[in-house]
Amino acid sequence: MKVVIVGGVAGGASAAARLRRLNEDAEIILFEKGEYISYANCGLPYYIGEVIKEREKLVVQTPEGMSKRFNIDIRTSSEVTKINPDEKIVVVHDIKNDRTYTESYDKLILSPGAEPIKPPMPGIDSKNIFTLRNIPDTFRIKDYVDYNNPKKAVVVGGGFIGLEVAENLKEVGLDVTVVELADHVMAPLDYEMASIVHQHLRDKGINLILKDGVKEFQHKDNSTTVVLNSGKTIDTDMVVLGIGVRPDIRLAKDAGLEIGERGGIKVNEYMQTSNPDIYAVGDAIEVKDYINGSNTLIPLAGPANKQGRIAADNICGRKSKYDGTQGTSVAKIFDLTVAATGNNETILKRAGIDYEKVIIHPNSHASYYPDALPMTIKLIFKKDDGKILGAQIVGFDGVDKRIDVIATAIRANMTVYDLEELELSYAPPYSSAKDPVNMAGFAASNILRGDISVFHWDEIEKIDMSKSVILDVRTDMEYQLGNIKGSINIPVDELRENLDKIPKDKDIYVYCQVGLRGYIACRILMQNGFKSVKNLSGGYKIYETATS
Amino acid sequence: MKVVIVGGVAGGASAAARLRRLNEDAEIILFEKGEYISYANCGLPYYIGEVIKEREKLVVQTPEGMSKRFNIDIRTSSEVTKINPDEKIVVVHDIKNDRTYTESYDKLILSPGAEPIKPPMPGIDSKNIFTLRNIPDTFRIKDYVDYNNPKKAVVVGGGFIGLEVAENLKEVGLDVTVVELADHVMAPLDYEMASIVHQHLRDKGINLILKDGVKEFQHKDNSTTVVLNSGKTIDTDMVVLGIGVRPDIRLAKDAGLEIGERGGIKVNEYMQTSNPDIYAVGDAIEVKDYINGSNTLIPLAGPANKQGRIAADNICGRKSKYDGTQGTSVAKIFDLTVAATGNNETILKRAGIDYEKVIIHPNSHASYYPDALPMTIKLIFKKDDGKILGAQIVGFDGVDKRIDVIATAIRANMTVYDLEELELSYAPPYSSAKDPVNMAGFAASNILRGDISVFHWDEIEKIDMSKSVILDVRTDMEYQLGNIKGSINIPVDELRENLDKIPKDKDIYVYCQVGLRGYIACRILMQNGFKSVKNLSGGYKIYETATS
Ligand SMILES: Cc1cc2nc3c(=O)[nH]c(=O)nc-3n(C[C@H](O)[C@H](O)[C@H](O)COP(=O)(O)OP(=O)(O)OC[C@H]3O[C@@H](n4cnc5c(N)ncnc54)[C@H](O)[C@@H]3O)c2cc1C
Ligand SMILES: Cc1cc2nc3c(=O)[nH]c(=O)nc-3n(C[C@H](O)[C@H](O)[C@H](O)COP(=O)(O)OP(=O)(O)OC[C@H]3O[C@@H](n4cnc5c(N)ncnc54)[C@H](O)[C@@H]3O)c2cc1C
Ligand SMILES: CC(C)(COP(=O)(O)OP(=O)(O)OC[C@H]1O[C@@H](n2cnc3c(N)ncnc32)[C@H](O)[C@@H]1OP(=O)(O)O)[C@@H](O)C(=O)NCCC(=O)NCCS
Ligand SMILES: CC(C)(COP(=O)(O)OP(=O)(O)OC[C@H]1O[C@@H](n2cnc3c(N)ncnc32)[C@H](O)[C@@H]1OP(=O)(O)O)[C@@H](O)C(=O)NCCC(=O)NCCS
Repeated sequence: MKVVIVGGVAGGASAAARLRRLNEDAEIILFEKGEYISYANCGLPYYIGEVIKEREKLVVQTPEGMSKRFNIDIRTSSEVTKINPDEKIVVVHDIKNDRTYTESYDKLILSPGAEPIKPPMPGIDSKNIFTLRNIPDTFRIKDYVDYNNPKKAVVVGGGFIGLEVAENLKEVGLDVTVVELADHVMAPLDYEMASIVHQHLRDKGINLILKDGVKEFQHKDNSTTVVLNSGKTIDTDMVVLGIGVRPDIRLAKDAGLEIGERGGIKVNEYMQTSNPDIYAVGDAIEVKDYINGSNTLIPLAGPANKQGRIAADNICGRKSKYDGTQGTSVAKIFDLTVAATGNNETILKRAGIDYEKVIIHPNSHASYYPDALPMTIKLIFKKDDGKILGAQIVGFDGVDKRIDVIATAIRANMTVYDLEELELSYAPPYSSAKDPVNMAGFAASNILRGDISVFHWDEIEKIDMSKSVILDVRTDMEYQLGNIKGSINIPVDELRENLDKIPKDKDIYVYCQVGLRGYIACRILMQNGFKSVKNLSGGYKIYETATS
Repeated sequence: MKVVIVGGVAGGASAAARLRRLNEDAEIILFEKGEYISYANCGLPYYIGEVIKEREKLVVQTPEGMSKRFNIDIRTSSEVTKINPDEKIVVVHDIKNDRTYTESYDKLILSPGAEPIKPPMPGIDSKNIFTLRNIPDTFRIKDYVDYNNPKKAVVVGGGFIGLEVAENLKEVGLDVTVVELADHVMAPLDYEMASIVHQHLRDKGINLILKDGVKEFQHKDNSTTVVLNSGKTIDTDMVVLGIGVRPDIRLAKDAGLEIGERGGIKVNEYMQTSNPDIYAVGDAIEVKDYINGSNTLIPLAGPANKQGRIAADNICGRKSKYDGTQGTSVAKIFDLTVAATGNNETILKRAGIDYEKVIIHPNSHASYYPDALPMTIKLIFKKDDGKILGAQIVGFDGVDKRIDVIATAIRANMTVYDLEELELSYAPPYSSAKDPVNMAGFAASNILRGDISVFHWDEIEKIDMSKSVILDVRTDMEYQLGNIKGSINIPVDELRENLDKIPKDKDIYVYCQVGLRGYIACRILMQNGFKSVKNLSGGYKIYETATS
């Protein structure tokens, strides 16, 4: 059997290694148009910030190391320019020798990845405007910083790559502006969760511009002016585009392979394209959204690696299935960890799925043990059966742990009731006896069981004050320091004695700082004849962050 | 409804709070024989080590705070000395006023906890011999350290409480000896995993004595001699006993409630004792082992808290079930994190369950990003269907995350095949594209699919060298630095050219440093006509640690 692989990094190199482990006799040829294979795409921003200092570290395997270990014919600087599926050959351009030849295959695996989006925009082709995808891109940016000594940078796009680049440029001393077209950075997050990130970016000295896009770049001498849609201008020495990526489908399209509705190569659960001898994996393909079943693009390394392994399995005659991608992701944004799994509200609305949500702010570990820090968890779940649909977590410590637990729960089709029961590890340096994930399960289940009704921060401005009371149950001191307009204050610990101060015929909107005291207050009110009582999920804390 | 609760900490206080949230009208009386309620048992060792500096921090809720918020009648310094189930009354000793009275109940919840074991041993009753269960115990130890200025301490028992105390005494400058009767510390771990902890304790300057027990204590002046079963003696200034705990069943037994085979109060899944109006929770009860269904004692705070909540639910007419305890636990031992979930080999052997196991040593996060540190994961699973039975993890960073993911997978009845597919969050500071949990899933599934056979470190001495070859596939340098006696060395990357050096008619036992190269070597050999090929799970690394 002769297997040809296009692309030598996450999906391609993983497929090659697995193929060899399963089949010593196969002929395996791996084509990579760049000079490097098996490199650490995800580490690239950190080389720019000098967090990763050695160039060698960016490469996980060299062509020599990999061919020695796995007996693979690795051809770098070799671009596959065409597939001829009828003859089962690929056309290869040997870049160094500028020579073109063909290679036949029995099975072909495509893992060409995705390209950074670079919209046709006046002035975009300039030596101080960069995109970041591979090692040469990284060196270009790093060299520019080292030799041209720029003082200011503009990062266009507030996705995780954009923000990682922004952080790393800031860390090496540049003045950084981030321009994001949407109303919030980090698309996997909903607005209020992203607002925590906005605050942090600003605290760290990033100039963050939201709801504005770039119209053009004007260059003069060594300086560039970025002109935004709003008319606003920013002077800068360099620009990095992080607007997103587009599946690299050129070869596939040209070969007549089916392309999906979202613009990625279409594959079945065995990673087979519309041509059964051609497999495709990684950023170039469309996957099934594990939550809502729709087709989607989720360009992440974990899925790419796993799909590569699965393609290899199937080529070797094992029926190995890929069940879809749930979009579990994490990013370090300065001191924050930002993580998500499953669907957010935007996606659920688009898919027409009825959901409820809670926001809580538990500590990373027992509050009496040093360095406990709060995180914010948003859990989204189905209204009818409590099935977990998604989660977003932003905080400083222990965030990746909780998202991975919830990601596992989602994979197991668990409900919020199951989260209540999870038996997670507890000692003071690591968690609380009721782990934040249990706590999210409690808070969510309480809603579904009808023990509490909640309202959300963005509903406050719609409250009809003629029919309603907004009740702040925090302490007098907390109330004085800032409260929701029109609210009255009765601390929860004095509520039972002051029930007569609250009108029974009105809708009572209760809030506290994080949601816990509000919940207790609501329970008191509900059992004392108040008929319409709701608790602000996530409390004043999320309201304040989201509205400031 | 009138509910009486015995014990005001993890199980008792949680039950009280939940009861009130569910029922504003119930009369709730909470009896606690000590002065404090709702304290942080798990934080106590860290007060001794001055990691937690303020006394107030040890108390999560004061009687005043709790009764204000939850309208609960909290009576501290009040010991329940007797239950009369027929009359549904308890007898209470008001310690401060030395007065005894009775209190009736409709429903009674017992959460008296467990007592430290203090065997009747010559010399054990001495003012410099301590146990640690509650706040007064903690102050006694701390005061002794502060005012008597001891130089040396002996900790008897290498469970997590013993080791936490040992660490904290060491941190405040004492010379610490730990004496453990078994061949290894930390009973939830198997021997080879504990051997990593042994090494670390010794590196940190703890004098660790294994397989030896205390016979007696001899006191002279201000010094104590600890005499061991072996005849060995240790001079010390103080002793802390951490031999384990015993369910406090005095009240229950005296009231005729059923006691289980393991010596804990017997309850059903609703936390009801043999008397339907009496519930019991926490360290005092026997629980069902979630893995093997047997009755067991698992005295941990997470289960106690959850059981308290469930008892309250049931008392309020909700059918809330407790499904058993899987023993998920974690402890910080100096720089190490030691965690476990599910059954270990000892328990599985006792239960007669057929299992297989793998050991791997993945990095906490991407190796190219700073501060990646290896951890050791042992995964135990059923031979027939791959169901996960247990896991043990020892390492420096990211250990609690992986144990929680596996604990969740166990709760979801997942198999090792499911671990392969988990979509966990990845960015370089947090994990690898194939997370350690995926990796454990791969390694385990490969065994079950027959792609690899493994042998274990403790089988090496039983290998019949007349019929076998032990093949070290590491580099020449690694081999020179230490290898398994009788092994020959062919580096994996040179294996394909040297197959003729290995006899085809013998059993080939392959090993590398951690298991990965050994696996690749085995795959090469298996596909080249070698019939009996096995890989050392966990590699030379675990062999060396376990046998040194
Ligand atoms: C800066 C950056 C940071 C990232 N951080 C993270 C992160 O933290 N977490 C995460 O999960 N993901 C991250 N990603 C995404 C992750 O790297 C990708 O999802 C993953 O690498 C996709 O794997 P792939 O095999 O599909 O494509 P790639 O890894 O991009 O590999 C494709 C390769 O194919 C080659 N190629 C393309 N066309 C041809 C051709 N015709 N002939 C020969 N060779 C060809 C390309 O040169 C390229 O080397 C990051 C990406 C970038 C760029
Ligand atoms: C030093 C230490 C460290 C620990 N660390 C951890 C850890 O890191 N992680 C973990 O999960 N678990 C840990 N634990 C265990 C955890 O604290 C217990 O599992 C948990 O507290 C059990 O809850 P409980 O309600 O059953 O008993 P307890 O919390 O012990 O409460 C029982 C209370 O009942 C009172 N009482 C008993 N009898 C009577 C009576 N007749 N009348 C009135 N009052 C009575 C006692 O005074 C006591 O205050 C630790 C325990 C100790 C001692
Ligand atoms: C380097 C690279 C070629 C390695 O591919 P790989 O060999 O499949 O992956 P790993 O080195 O992680 O090893 C995984 C294999 O070793 C096995 N393994 C790992 N540790 C083991 C152990 N201790 N004992 C036994 N087997 C072990 C696994 O089971 C798996 O084998 P399988 O797929 O046959 O089941 C590929 O991952 C790569 O190119 N990575 C860099 C590019 C990249 O991913 N970029 C994006 C992220 S920055
Ligand atoms: C302090 C103590 C009395 C608190 O009990 P509790 O009120 O049940 O527990 P918590 O304060 O953790 O709050 C949990 C409750 O608040 C709810 N909650 C938490 N955060 C919330 C939020 N942001 N919004 C809404 N509800 C929230 C949970 O749903 C849960 O309520 P429920 O049980 O009715 O569903 C008890 O846990 C205790 O005594 N702890 C110390 C002793 C101990 O555990 N020791 C051993 C470990 S060191």
